[in-house]
Amino acid sequence: MNKNNKKVNAIIVLIGNEILSGRTQDANVSFLSKWLNELGVRVEEVRVILDEQEAIVKCINEVRKNFKYVFTTGGIGPTHDDITSRSIAKAFNLSYCYNKEAYEILAKYYKPGEFNDGRKKMAKMPDKTSLIYNPSSGAPGFIIENVYCLPGVPSILKSMLGGLENKIKGGKKILSDTISVKTVESEIAKPLEDVQNNFPNVEIGSYPFFRSGKVGVSIVMRSTEKNQIEDCTKQIQNFIQQKKIKIVETK
Amino acid sequence: MNKNNKKVNAIIVLIGNEILSGRTQDANVSFLSKWLNELGVRVEEVRVILDEQEAIVKCINEVRKNFKYVFTTGGIGPTHDDITSRSIAKAFNLSYCYNKEAYEILAKYYKPGEFNDGRKKMAKMPDKTSLIYNPSSGAPGFIIENVYCLPGVPSILKSMLGGLENKIKGGKKILSDTISVKTVESEIAKPLEDVQNNFPNVEIGSYPFFRSGKVGVSIVMRSTEKNQIEDCTKQIQNFIQQKKIKIVETK
Repeated sequence: MNKNNKKVNAIIVLIGNEILSGRTQDANVSFLSKWLNELGVRVEEVRVILDEQEAIVKCINEVRKNFKYVFTTGGIGPTHDDITSRSIAKAFNLSYCYNKEAYEILAKYYKPGEFNDGRKKMAKMPDKTSLIYNPSSGAPGFIIENVYCLPGVPSILKSMLGGLENKIKGGKKILSDTISVKTVESEIAKPLEDVQNNFPNVEIGSYPFFRSGKVGVSIVMRSTEKNQIEDCTKQIQNFIQQKKIKIVETK
Repeated sequence: MNKNNKKVNAIIVLIGNEILSGRTQDANVSFLSKWLNELGVRVEEVRVILDEQEAIVKCINEVRKNFKYVFTTGGIGPTHDDITSRSIAKAFNLSYCYNKEAYEILAKYYKPGEFNDGRKKMAKMPDKTSLIYNPSSGAPGFIIENVYCLPGVPSILKSMLGGLENKIKGGKKILSDTISVKTVESEIAKPLEDVQNNFPNVEIGSYPFFRSGKVGVSIVMRSTEKNQIEDCTKQIQNFIQQKKIKIVETK
């Protein structure tokens, strides 16, 4: 990435046995990463960890030192296997107690008599957190230092990001261009490497695809610098033309 | 999990900027996890890391000590951004050189004159590895100690697992049963916690779902002990009946 652009990085930590067991296909990483890209934050790692206090405490205490932003998803619901809030309190050595504002939000959200113990549990958080409001199902997430705790249900998570945008201080927006060509990777490996060497501040990726029986390669350029992506694109187009390779799509 | 069952765990490490950027949706974790479950291996963590040598070396050297099996996917193709093999060699302090057997496989796989430098690169591996054969596209993966390196393209990865099954020494097969009910999590949080307390060797997860406008909860039980899952199921069915909650599906 561009050396002049102060690196703003993030890690996404998915807390959930259901993804590790293969039962549930993650549907949050791609969405969160794209949203963070737009804000100039580069996701540099993802971890999926067990719903176990020891695993959560160890992971959070490691990654919160190494990344500017930590986003967790999952484990903030009402059932016994939802132990994210309690574990994050433990990681920060804070008490795990009712958050007054969250309690009031939930007490209002549910009909009289329906604010049961399971629902009350969703108001229990590490002490001294600030809330991430939830426009779709009431129960808020929370922020403690650089750790942002969100739910695992994708539709609810998505609805909560709008309220977070002004809290994230990213760098320059990460731009991306793709040229998809009808060839195989090994045919373009050498000239593509030469282009990469010419543009150290553009991250060039090469990804084979197999669509409707057709084989091809998507060349993806990522950088904060629009003009460098453009110059890089020209050099790639040059060698593609020389090799008489067909461009399938650019975007 | 059952205390009598020697724990056999694994981590999956996805090496690929394309997943971190949000461009590509992972399609390997769920498949690999289910395959490992069948072999009695429990995936306890997943990491997605950058295509950067430092990140790969650091991650591999950490996780290969902490997990019985390490599976990597991605970064073993012919282009400049495919640096998994070189980085794993570095992690193990081994030279990165042509593997004779892999070289011969690839030399036979391609037509005369088509075994170019990009393709030759796919025969370069850490010294002293054993190969994971690739029935669909020639280029093999490799095994070094407890680290199994596979490609990122899901269809190719899947085709290579058959040859690995007799190399993985798992524990008892991890069994799973699911009861899906028409309710919300907070309605069953308390009785479900009681059941969990009765069955410390069954991992009980509670997952809300939203399908065709219907709201429900899937209760998933996982254990190596069939009889414990059955007894656990009975206790869950009991409180569901008492609460007059409808069962949508069992499997």
